[in-house]
Amino acid sequence: MKISDKIKEYKKQKKVFYSFEYFPPKTDFGMDNLYSRIDKMSSLDPAYIDITWGAGGSTAERTLDMSKTIQKYFGLDVMMHLTCTNMSVKLIDEVLSEAKKNNISNILALRGDPPEGSNEWRKENQAFNYGVDLVHYIRKNFGDTFFLAVGAYPETHQEQSDPDLDITYLKEKVDAGVDIIVTQLFYDIDKFLIFRDKCLSKGIDIPIIPGIMPIHNYSRFRKFTQFCKVNIPENILKKLEPIRNDDASVINFGIEEGADMCEKLVKEGVPGLHFYTLNLEHSVKEILNSIGLISDNKANRELPWRQSSDEIRKSSEDVRPIFWSNRPISYLTRTENWDDFPNGRWGDISSPTFGELNQYHAIRAGSQSNEIRDKRKKIWGQPQSIKDISNVFMSFCKGDINALPWCETKLAIESKQISNELIKLNESGYFTINSQPNVNGVPSDDTHFGWGAEGGRVYQKAYLEFFTSKENLDILITKIKKNNNISYQAVNVSEDLISNVRKDSVNVVTWGVFPGEKIKQPTIVDARSFMIWKNEAFSLWINDWASIYEKDSISYLLLKKIYENYYLVNIVDNNFIKSNMIKQIIK
Amino acid sequence: MKISDKIKEYKKQKKVFYSFEYFPPKTDFGMDNLYSRIDKMSSLDPAYIDITWGAGGSTAERTLDMSKTIQKYFGLDVMMHLTCTNMSVKLIDEVLSEAKKNNISNILALRGDPPEGSNEWRKENQAFNYGVDLVHYIRKNFGDTFFLAVGAYPETHQEQSDPDLDITYLKEKVDAGVDIIVTQLFYDIDKFLIFRDKCLSKGIDIPIIPGIMPIHNYSRFRKFTQFCKVNIPENILKKLEPIRNDDASVINFGIEEGADMCEKLVKEGVPGLHFYTLNLEHSVKEILNSIGLISDNKANRELPWRQSSDEIRKSSEDVRPIFWSNRPISYLTRTENWDDFPNGRWGDISSPTFGELNQYHAIRAGSQSNEIRDKRKKIWGQPQSIKDISNVFMSFCKGDINALPWCETKLAIESKQISNELIKLNESGYFTINSQPNVNGVPSDDTHFGWGAEGGRVYQKAYLEFFTSKENLDILITKIKKNNNISYQAVNVSEDLISNVRKDSVNVVTWGVFPGEKIKQPTIVDARSFMIWKNEAFSLWINDWASIYEKDSISYLLLKKIYENYYLVNIVDNNFIKSNMIKQIIK
Repeated sequence: MKISDKIKEYKKQKKVFYSFEYFPPKTDFGMDNLYSRIDKMSSLDPAYIDITWGAGGSTAERTLDMSKTIQKYFGLDVMMHLTCTNMSVKLIDEVLSEAKKNNISNILALRGDPPEGSNEWRKENQAFNYGVDLVHYIRKNFGDTFFLAVGAYPETHQEQSDPDLDITYLKEKVDAGVDIIVTQLFYDIDKFLIFRDKCLSKGIDIPIIPGIMPIHNYSRFRKFTQFCKVNIPENILKKLEPIRNDDASVINFGIEEGADMCEKLVKEGVPGLHFYTLNLEHSVKEILNSIGLISDNKANRELPWRQSSDEIRKSSEDVRPIFWSNRPISYLTRTENWDDFPNGRWGDISSPTFGELNQYHAIRAGSQSNEIRDKRKKIWGQPQSIKDISNVFMSFCKGDINALPWCETKLAIESKQISNELIKLNESGYFTINSQPNVNGVPSDDTHFGWGAEGGRVYQKAYLEFFTSKENLDILITKIKKNNNISYQAVNVSEDLISNVRKDSVNVVTWGVFPGEKIKQPTIVDARSFMIWKNEAFSLWINDWASIYEKDSISYLLLKKIYENYYLVNIVDNNFIKSNMIKQIIK
Repeated sequence: MKISDKIKEYKKQKKVFYSFEYFPPKTDFGMDNLYSRIDKMSSLDPAYIDITWGAGGSTAERTLDMSKTIQKYFGLDVMMHLTCTNMSVKLIDEVLSEAKKNNISNILALRGDPPEGSNEWRKENQAFNYGVDLVHYIRKNFGDTFFLAVGAYPETHQEQSDPDLDITYLKEKVDAGVDIIVTQLFYDIDKFLIFRDKCLSKGIDIPIIPGIMPIHNYSRFRKFTQFCKVNIPENILKKLEPIRNDDASVINFGIEEGADMCEKLVKEGVPGLHFYTLNLEHSVKEILNSIGLISDNKANRELPWRQSSDEIRKSSEDVRPIFWSNRPISYLTRTENWDDFPNGRWGDISSPTFGELNQYHAIRAGSQSNEIRDKRKKIWGQPQSIKDISNVFMSFCKGDINALPWCETKLAIESKQISNELIKLNESGYFTINSQPNVNGVPSDDTHFGWGAEGGRVYQKAYLEFFTSKENLDILITKIKKNNNISYQAVNVSEDLISNVRKDSVNVVTWGVFPGEKIKQPTIVDARSFMIWKNEAFSLWINDWASIYEKDSISYLLLKKIYENYYLVNIVDNNFIKSNMIKQIIK
């Protein structure tokens, strides 16, 4: 989606937006890590994210892929960088056409740096000489398809000595059809302000977004600022020198300094802040927290789950099965070929056509690499007994580890409320992978459970999903059979089904009532989809966990035994007014 | 719908069903009255109703029309009688084809009485000689299209002297493909039991339903029993003789006697009771009440409004705008040409294509007759002032009168809870025509508000709809503007609209949450449909009310002035947890 409306909306609400810039990593392992980080950082709610164009072409092909993937599966709008150096018209045209086709609608048009190894910029053989050529080309051949950004240099481009001429060139670009300007990093606010004033006096009246790079590491900071010819104010250097060898102190100073800078810029009326993240999370998050631009209040989410940023999907889809709620990217890939998405209610899909699981693995290409295996061994250990498995699940509930094969991210906010109960269940051999407590009509702006428009009320039925042995299952079913309100489905890998619900049952477990609206019912337990999900859920025992060990190891055989014998169980307490399901089960 | 499944379901639940028989009246006024009565009696929840074939053909053509109308608009399954006397094969074929086309799937096949005036039955010129011929014909030409009933005579047919031969003939009919037997009226239970035993011994094993005709009037009772050669037990005669000239006592005795009889028959294991109502309500209702077959508990309704009996419509439609809730037949006629019905949620109908209002008047053909006018004048008086109008509306809220132009039946059970508040509003010049209080999650089996499956919770937003003057409207809007939770639309006949809702707003005002189900949201306030409804609502001031007076009378001119100047207003309090809308307005 073009971010123009978003930016207007921020302005209207007198809010400052922020964006995060990432660069494509060189390895599959790095890619996998970065996806996880972007996914995590999306909860900070950036207006959009930037993906840089691979420097010198080495990772260029990844930029388009990453942009497509992130926009499709992470619910984020992407500003894709595009440099024209060393690019033929044909290649530029292909990239832009592909971007258009995939609804990538925001482009940062750059000249780019000369190819590595060349000491001098030779323009005679180039199709595009300057950034302005690319802007002209895009507007001429793609009209208004793209929201266009360009870079600018508050302290003048390193190759340019005349600041006024630099701004004249910028004005040319703007006149060629640019929507927004993002500046190079800087640390001297006065220089930025002078630059901004000059722009305005030259008639540049589009938004100018300052680029912020938090200081992470002393030597890299010095090297980079020297390369870009960026001035470092004296007081920064004075504070940095004494701590230059203490990385942690440098990072903390960078946060302090960055927060101070951002605060001043916001006071000076900048519409947004652009962060050069260097693919790191901590500093940016702390800066935003410290200046109060984000809070833990998640109640401004439109639905209880993060929507796709795909325009069609976003505007129509508002119901999903709960099963994939901790594996949203898997859900998005497995349903991306659907012609239309459930809207208002889960349709009567007699056999939901979910895509194959391997479509998902194609995105996370690095997930089978050795580095990934080692990383997983580090967090999940080398279980020798059911007790060890139990401990892994308990650690997840305690927040000591951040992922399980069934949970792409840490314990959901909805489940944190019941984490003590979940720990007890896992201790008793009920390995929980998904859950939510009951909620009886709390206001839609509730910090923990709220979603949707103002003035509404939201509801949840208690939900619990876990793997357990047949023995444990039998004990459980005897207990819950005494409670008429409980719906359950249990199935093992051989498809033995034990259930008290109809085969086509669709049970709404999250819904909301809003002023002047239809009832929204975004999360359901669908008996049919559960039979699809169970294949994925069981396969993860082997593919994502057992496979990291040798095939004849105790760990491998233990996980295989669970895979072959355990049941996957989902249970819903239909009494959402006062649910005691989880307590009852623990007893 | 064929009633076979229904009858099986009653049997499975060990419940006795009952059916009501009506005959087509001769005049339009009579027809209008009968429709109102059938509508009212439908709340007694009969398994089906019978419409007799017009005796001697005089009202025969009405039978098919009535059957169609009742089935379509009153949500009742119809058993249509069909006699073959004096009927050509072509005519029978036409009637059956028409019945089939209109989903009338239950036929009581009869020979019928000889045409009036003929003293002797001449069979030589007949296409069909006996009931059995009709049964054969139907099964041969229509297969299993119809559920077939035939009549039987516990005390032998009046033209037949040999009881055994009578049963032999009955067996022939049954063998030809009959599903159920309904007996002629009787008062001697022993005779019925003997007859039933004989049937069984002859191999007749389909259900035999006793026909009950409550005694209403002494002389008619004597005449009729003599004509049908029906025995009257001594003890009945003995009790009747002393009160024979006191009509009220005869009716009460009839109820007592009928209840006694029905109780005994139920004990003897009859699957159902068939009532010859003579188009009257009182006795049948009292008998059913007295033997405990009905109760005031309406919580077994599937949706808050009565569904159509049309199979397709019934199985798919589950959302309606609230506006027509007191004029359901108008709604059914105006939407009968819809290709599909809102299911799960009110669709995005950009311009709902409601049929013309005159389609509705075509059903109630007698509504413009002099008798109807006189009847209306009697209940609504001859208003000379706004105060008089106010009194009419107040009387309706108090239950003193049973109908208003906007309300086909008496004050809805939902509104009774707030009748005191409604009376006050009407006193102040807010003429209420529709309302419901807020309900915050009462159990779905609640006596007043419950609907839908067991174990659910139902909700309502407070709703109020009324006509009022511009002055009153202004006062009101100033008041409710202080409350953020209130949505309103007000419009006059010239389409001046005062509203705080979007033009395409759809506000759910009744919904339910059920175990293992999607959320049901059967009643909505749809801003677009309101603009359709307002035309109907305004027209009723003139067509159904003012038109009963002379055009230059004070009453006519008064109503016309209201029609021209008042606003129709709907308001919803979105705070369903704790609504104080109505109190706030009264203040």
